Amino acid sequence: MTKLKQEALQMHRDHQGKLEIVSKVALRNEYDLSLAYSPGVAEPCKEIERDKATAYDYTMKGNTVAVLTNGTAVLGLGNIGPDASMPVMEGKAALLKSFAGVDAFPIALKTEDPEEIIRTVKLLEPGFGGVNLEDIKAPECFIVEERLRQEMDIPVFHDDQHGTAIVTLAGLINALKLTGRSVEETKVVVNGAGAAGIAVVKLLSGYGFSDIIMCDTKGAIYEGRPNGMNPYKALVAEITNFNKEDGQLADVIQGADVFIGVSAEGALSQDMIRSMNDEPIIFAMANPNPEILPHLAKEAGARVVGTGRSDFPNQVNNVLAFPGIFRGALDVRASDINETMKIAAVGAIAGLLSEDELHDDYVIPAPFDSRVAPAVAAAVARAAVETGVARKPVVEKVEVFSEK
Amino acid sequence: MTKLKQEALQMHRDHQGKLEIVSKVALRNEYDLSLAYSPGVAEPCKEIERDKATAYDYTMKGNTVAVLTNGTAVLGLGNIGPDASMPVMEGKAALLKSFAGVDAFPIALKTEDPEEIIRTVKLLEPGFGGVNLEDIKAPECFIVEERLRQEMDIPVFHDDQHGTAIVTLAGLINALKLTGRSVEETKVVVNGAGAAGIAVVKLLSGYGFSDIIMCDTKGAIYEGRPNGMNPYKALVAEITNFNKEDGQLADVIQGADVFIGVSAEGALSQDMIRSMNDEPIIFAMANPNPEILPHLAKEAGARVVGTGRSDFPNQVNNVLAFPGIFRGALDVRASDINETMKIAAVGAIAGLLSEDELHDDYVIPAPFDSRVAPAVAAAVARAAVETGVARKPVVEKVEVFSEK
Repeated sequence: MTKLKQEALQMHRDHQGKLEIVSKVALRNEYDLSLAYSPGVAEPCKEIERDKATAYDYTMKGNTVAVLTNGTAVLGLGNIGPDASMPVMEGKAALLKSFAGVDAFPIALKTEDPEEIIRTVKLLEPGFGGVNLEDIKAPECFIVEERLRQEMDIPVFHDDQHGTAIVTLAGLINALKLTGRSVEETKVVVNGAGAAGIAVVKLLSGYGFSDIIMCDTKGAIYEGRPNGMNPYKALVAEITNFNKEDGQLADVIQGADVFIGVSAEGALSQDMIRSMNDEPIIFAMANPNPEILPHLAKEAGARVVGTGRSDFPNQVNNVLAFPGIFRGALDVRASDINETMKIAAVGAIAGLLSEDELHDDYVIPAPFDSRVAPAVAAAVARAAVETGVARKPVVEKVEVFSEK
Repeated sequence: MTKLKQEALQMHRDHQGKLEIVSKVALRNEYDLSLAYSPGVAEPCKEIERDKATAYDYTMKGNTVAVLTNGTAVLGLGNIGPDASMPVMEGKAALLKSFAGVDAFPIALKTEDPEEIIRTVKLLEPGFGGVNLEDIKAPECFIVEERLRQEMDIPVFHDDQHGTAIVTLAGLINALKLTGRSVEETKVVVNGAGAAGIAVVKLLSGYGFSDIIMCDTKGAIYEGRPNGMNPYKALVAEITNFNKEDGQLADVIQGADVFIGVSAEGALSQDMIRSMNDEPIIFAMANPNPEILPHLAKEAGARVVGTGRSDFPNQVNNVLAFPGIFRGALDVRASDINETMKIAAVGAIAGLLSEDELHDDYVIPAPFDSRVAPAVAAAVARAAVETGVARKPVVEKVEVFSEK
């Protein structure tokens, strides 16, 4: 076991997990108790009974998100079950607090039945201002998110789909600027048709990319492909590969400008990169080992290379997106996180890097860039208001400087 | 609106509820992130996948309790619904943390169907070390608790039932000492056959009281009473009122030693007290206004009077029980909170007051007596080990004094 692994294990054991739940109010004496508990507590209860919307004022709901999984697709570990998924959910919750001040609570459900997940999350709604779905395997994750977005009054966001898609698109926009490409003329190949890949395709299509081809293990996806299809790939086929190109990745990548990999180690070869357009853009995001290592991609002619890893440049890390997105959604009591809000997050992340700052190894802000979450939150909140899903106006945060 | 009510409302609004969820580990840089999140987090995940029991070591499970309701019987407010119940649940969670270091998270379920509550709580099991059921109306609360205790591997405790019963019995034991009564010869009348009343009867019966009569709005309950019975009252009838006394409270209270009220304001009159045995013991716990005010009870001859209120002596407050009980259960990873553990809690609470300290206005420790929770926790943990429901031995806390 490596030193990092040992340390990680020891750290989790030393702290017995990573989260604790603390009181924001003092409970030192009878008087404190009479305010926070009986009899004073009856007052906010009665207010909320009169008007449910005041739950956002008097309870933790307005700042609280469930990080919810059933443990069927955890990291690269697969279906390890709800108990074993908890360290990841706690970590995610810790990130939401650290990066955006969101109170997040991990919920690991003991079921693989999407209907049971849907039913349960709906019953949990009163206490939460939002739901971050996490590490639920495809295709169940699509059904669960879709239904919950329709049937609940609080935002539901499956980070494995949209987090990756948002950060990828942000990086891609900056990479296009650097290489002088336009959205319209750029040919994108997305490899891997899981939750993240399908979300990438949808977001890129919604943003205006029209020349996209998605590949799965059977090769390029196109409308009417006879094998290996499902309703989600069928939807992909409707918005991509209009020429119905058939063939493997090595075939359809020829002449492409961009490769986006959410697939597996080794899926992209140097020869494939050499067959792409000049100065291609490579996002090789398989975890823990990318589709191709950055130095090999560069050697084969790639101009911009991004991965999911922190030890290479241009890390595509969801932490750039989800904390700010939930912060923004909660700030305006949004009922949904819609496509406009996602695109607003993309714009905020991409826009943080000025044209002067941009270079091949810096098309995406670093995960600990403290400007990111506030910028994303502000953009997402504004987009929520503009699209009518906000239940509270944007409060512009005015910085007050004391005059001496 | 009184000043207290206004302050309570303002306090809840100022803090947007009472709880927050914070990280116990630092997240300042890439290295922290690699331990708490990817890739280091995979190690505890794999350990738990290998052996589910290690979730107690590597996650928050072992110190975390759900405070779970559906809002159907909140304080004296009744069925105000899950949203409006949240301030009470948050308060309860804050108490668990403040009094016993237990991380507790409020869950308010949008359902009145006991089967749906049962199903949901079972699905939530992976993340929790225990469940504190709260403010669920009778008779659903009985079904829910009974089934969950049978069907789950973590302790389930309905505080409205057992918390009140435990503290009442503790106070009663001390009052018996003061008045020189024995358990065997003491006649107890319990008025009010809701969740708390029924739990009081069961606990007293289990402790050895054999002369108990319970009254509901139809009068004394006895086996075969033709009207107003239900399965829970039928169970009460099996362990009480062996002479099948019929009649109203005013009839059956004659000659009784103890009155325990979990009913309503004004249910007990001075004349009724005068008809009791000499120096009777009165626990008038209706909230917010007791069955009889303490000075009127004393005037009519009562020796020891307890209420649910903090502004009178001998406050029967659940906070003396539930924090220590969960602390003790979690400390030994108990799978249940059984009758022996409840009786152990009773003994710990009653035993805190020495015979010298005991007097008529001090048969129950004060809510902020910091000796209570540790004493209860230790007793409950030992009882769990003795009854075979502990999955970890008791660790005796050894105080180390530095030698200078």
